[in-house]
Amino acid sequence: MPILVMKFGGTSVANLDRIRRAAKRVGVEVAKGYDVIVIVSAMSGKTNELVGWVGETSPLYDAREYDAVVSSGENVTAGLMALTLQEMDIPARSWQGWQVPVMTTSAHSQARIEDIPPANIKAKFAEGMKVAVVAGFQGVSPEGRITTLGRGGSDTTAVAFAAAFDAERCDIYTDVDGVYTTDPRICDKARKLDRISFEEMLELASLGAKVLQTRSVELAMRYKVKLRVLSSFEEQSDTAGTLVCDEEEIMESNVVAGVAYSRDEAKLTLVSVADRPGIAATIFTALGDAGVNVDMIVQNIGEDGRTDMTFSCPTDQVMRAETAIAEARKENVLNFEELIADKDVAKISVVGIGMRSHTGVAAQMFRVLSAEGINIKIITTSEIKISVLIDRKYMELAVQALHDAFDLDKAG
Amino acid sequence: MPILVMKFGGTSVANLDRIRRAAKRVGVEVAKGYDVIVIVSAMSGKTNELVGWVGETSPLYDAREYDAVVSSGENVTAGLMALTLQEMDIPARSWQGWQVPVMTTSAHSQARIEDIPPANIKAKFAEGMKVAVVAGFQGVSPEGRITTLGRGGSDTTAVAFAAAFDAERCDIYTDVDGVYTTDPRICDKARKLDRISFEEMLELASLGAKVLQTRSVELAMRYKVKLRVLSSFEEQSDTAGTLVCDEEEIMESNVVAGVAYSRDEAKLTLVSVADRPGIAATIFTALGDAGVNVDMIVQNIGEDGRTDMTFSCPTDQVMRAETAIAEARKENVLNFEELIADKDVAKISVVGIGMRSHTGVAAQMFRVLSAEGINIKIITTSEIKISVLIDRKYMELAVQALHDAFDLDKAG
Repeated sequence: MPILVMKFGGTSVANLDRIRRAAKRVGVEVAKGYDVIVIVSAMSGKTNELVGWVGETSPLYDAREYDAVVSSGENVTAGLMALTLQEMDIPARSWQGWQVPVMTTSAHSQARIEDIPPANIKAKFAEGMKVAVVAGFQGVSPEGRITTLGRGGSDTTAVAFAAAFDAERCDIYTDVDGVYTTDPRICDKARKLDRISFEEMLELASLGAKVLQTRSVELAMRYKVKLRVLSSFEEQSDTAGTLVCDEEEIMESNVVAGVAYSRDEAKLTLVSVADRPGIAATIFTALGDAGVNVDMIVQNIGEDGRTDMTFSCPTDQVMRAETAIAEARKENVLNFEELIADKDVAKISVVGIGMRSHTGVAAQMFRVLSAEGINIKIITTSEIKISVLIDRKYMELAVQALHDAFDLDKAG
Repeated sequence: MPILVMKFGGTSVANLDRIRRAAKRVGVEVAKGYDVIVIVSAMSGKTNELVGWVGETSPLYDAREYDAVVSSGENVTAGLMALTLQEMDIPARSWQGWQVPVMTTSAHSQARIEDIPPANIKAKFAEGMKVAVVAGFQGVSPEGRITTLGRGGSDTTAVAFAAAFDAERCDIYTDVDGVYTTDPRICDKARKLDRISFEEMLELASLGAKVLQTRSVELAMRYKVKLRVLSSFEEQSDTAGTLVCDEEEIMESNVVAGVAYSRDEAKLTLVSVADRPGIAATIFTALGDAGVNVDMIVQNIGEDGRTDMTFSCPTDQVMRAETAIAEARKENVLNFEELIADKDVAKISVVGIGMRSHTGVAAQMFRVLSAEGINIKIITTSEIKISVLIDRKYMELAVQALHDAFDLDKAG
């Protein structure tokens, strides 16, 4: 039998009614002849409740106990889903991570899956079981303790199972019906993509499009797992949602696949830094040591042996960055006039594998923003992405203008 | 190090504050030099929530999935308790049933513990761990699936651990401060017992004194585990609560240890049954096959070849009993005039190992009830117990009169 992996997130299994709805979707695939592996999250809200209790009990908690507590939500859903399927006369049983076993590293709360031996579940399929319901997000360490994979880990569980069982496809059921050219909430011309390449999805995922966990996309790319994102709240056809796949499987596409944005980036400028060799290394070593994730960097050409150094980092790390810079100044390894933090910025990115073979995308992006009177503060580029930092008040305007300019409302 | 087992029920771990309170009690015992095994229930209400979800999903549920779902509540408490102890600088970790492992039969939802190999936990004690927090009520089957021990199973878990680890004592923390001579809610002279024998506790437990699970008392008696029942809501000394122990350890005691009652018993009378050999067997085989737990039985001497047969059973089984009797009549294996059910009755029992050597307890009991004008409907006796069925309206009066007559307000 061909194997299909289906993953249902927290909102898709939020209560018994929704579990029944999800189970019906599973039934449709079983009727087509698939052996199905269902990966479930905790009922929405449950994991937050458990995380809250752990934090209240012990602010600097033992991650092993955190994992033991927090993993219980998925176990409940797995059992309830198996029971629901049985009520529909579909042979099903639940599996907790240690029962499969989902073997992970010992890095509690952020463990990585090392192996998923398929023998136990395959033996049950051979005996006539049609659906294995697996608690997502969890595994077991070499020491026999329960581990979790970090927030959103159920996506990763699903892709890892698809790889381990050589599944035909991995369907991720969520509360949106696919991956869009941009956020429909700020651009009403946003269009659902039928297909998107792993590389593009990775850029979009890490840029703030919260549809899929970055790690799950990486894993899918490495093992060539066909990943489909679709809504659990709509009737589905075989071509519903968005297929995330190898770029070879995408016949034709726009040069730009999507426009992403992020509000969570702040800009910091060190004004009039004494410009001497190694000064950039000094600044970014200090920030790195303090755990600040620096994203974009730009250095203005200096005069009189002084320069301005501008960088961006997540908004919630600004205070940490300021402290690290102040420390470095106190220790006399850094000499500057002032540090200016600007949280009123946003990052806009255009992403597309077509950029590899098409020149002029950056120039067009800058022209579009300029025509709208939007000033660009920092620019970074990768092979398939161009990102700019702008004033936050222009964020929506920039997204809409770029979406129009690159014809994203029309299929490629 | 001597080992102590401490069990905390659902109300004793109902929220984070109560878990902290329980952890403090554990800390007191650790300070005395014990290695402690803590058995925890689910936070009160949690198991009912999970059981409700299972029932709503699947009325005739797969008990294996029921166990997988329902066991999760204890896992949460175990992790939170371990974290709380760690916050108090007490080296602790949690164990789920399969991690110990608590090996059980495959009788899901009512599994029996077969073995608890102590090696894993003992190795951790040897490494300096002071407290092993174990999720109660659960185990793992030979097939590697999660089992549960049935309602109240955490008491059984606690006693089984005390036996497996040769613990000095097994302390059961609950919401009452011990075992009483009778229910203080209906008799204000009720007195807490310092000690009670296993045999007496067994009779009281099965008679409706809901302090301890019957199975846990049986297990404690078999393995000579000293069992102490005490309140988690009061400051405790070494002699607090009630010690359930071998009768040899009770120096002197009253002839009667306690008065128990049960409202859950109904009386059924088959009027004018055709009295022929084997008629009792016919009636009680039919009832047994229908799953009716018959408790007391009395047969009136008949005239004209006919007799009256009276028996008692739990109130919620009356309808089942009536159906079984009606079936037998239809099949012509039973011939009687009418079946009268009386749910307005109560069972009153006096229990005490002293009865073995003291005669006249039954006579005194009947005199006391007669003096109060209370009519006795059925009588049964065992070596250490006398039970009578009376009109329910006299229940409180009977308990109070017997408590007085046997001097239960005074220590033996």
